[in-house]
Amino acid sequence: MIYEIVVPQFTKMLGNLLAILDDAGKYAEEKKFDVGVLLQSRLAPDQLNLLRQVQVACDTAKLGAARLTDTEKNAPVHDDSEQTLAEIKARIEGVVKYLNTFTAKDFAAAADRRITQPRWTGKTLSGQEFLIQHVIPNFYFHTTMVHAILRHNGVGIGKSNYLGAMPFRAAA
Amino acid sequence: MIYEIVVPQFTKMLGNLLAILDDAGKYAEEKKFDVGVLLQSRLAPDQLNLLRQVQVACDTAKLGAARLTDTEKNAPVHDDSEQTLAEIKARIEGVVKYLNTFTAKDFAAAADRRITQPRWTGKTLSGQEFLIQHVIPNFYFHTTMVHAILRHNGVGIGKSNYLGAMPFRAAA
Repeated sequence: MIYEIVVPQFTKMLGNLLAILDDAGKYAEEKKFDVGVLLQSRLAPDQLNLLRQVQVACDTAKLGAARLTDTEKNAPVHDDSEQTLAEIKARIEGVVKYLNTFTAKDFAAAADRRITQPRWTGKTLSGQEFLIQHVIPNFYFHTTMVHAILRHNGVGIGKSNYLGAMPFRAAA
Repeated sequence: MIYEIVVPQFTKMLGNLLAILDDAGKYAEEKKFDVGVLLQSRLAPDQLNLLRQVQVACDTAKLGAARLTDTEKNAPVHDDSEQTLAEIKARIEGVVKYLNTFTAKDFAAAADRRITQPRWTGKTLSGQEFLIQHVIPNFYFHTTMVHAILRHNGVGIGKSNYLGAMPFRAAA
């Protein structure tokens, strides 16, 4: 299930994020303003702007997969220099491509692995704690904030744009 | 792991939500305005207000647990009549109490159960699909929206108030 959450589901959510960024681009075109205004927007002066929200969502997915599979050395490095819609979309697409280099097998030992990251100064979480209490809530926090910033600025999106399609099956 | 996500983790997040609602209450007192203004706030005119965001987060957790364990008939019914800070906090506390009536064993067959809900008109998801693609993203969407609405209105909260404490262990 860890693989299902971190690879297929995060891939789906990042695809939904690409689609709402396209909606933001179209909205800016229609209203004849620079989409950069939206990319620099935030809901509070001490909050990360939209570009940074996307960058952190991307890093949460990338480093979540890398740390849970103990392959952090192989993860692509991003310098957070994106400034345009095309650049931030490329960042997301790169992370989706990276996520999809993993298979379910790579996560076989993930739940019990001890996981740390630089700002934790040596302290650790189990892989399951890291996934459930850190990766998942962080990833959805930042993807939702992108949605919130765009919606607050008038982009015509709703929760279905965030959730995406469900793999429904007809009742038997 | 389904139990870990739906019971202990959602309980933790609902506790964090109670704490930021208390912060909202204190902020309103300090600034001498009615906290009801915050409870009625939203980021866009066609978005749910804060009270409804909390109600939907609560229902997502409650009905997620109920449907995954096939015990929906026993779930408490809420009529979404909360109007005050005390009432909406009591709603959250009631859901936390309900979640904690479940044990890990109750979720043993959850992943493979076929799950539906009234608005799906007979269509179904597997329990695992329901959890990963519906319950988790919905729950974090609405809890994050509460955070976003409060932060936009000046309540002094950050991401650590949303995430809560981590069960760190010192490195060996």
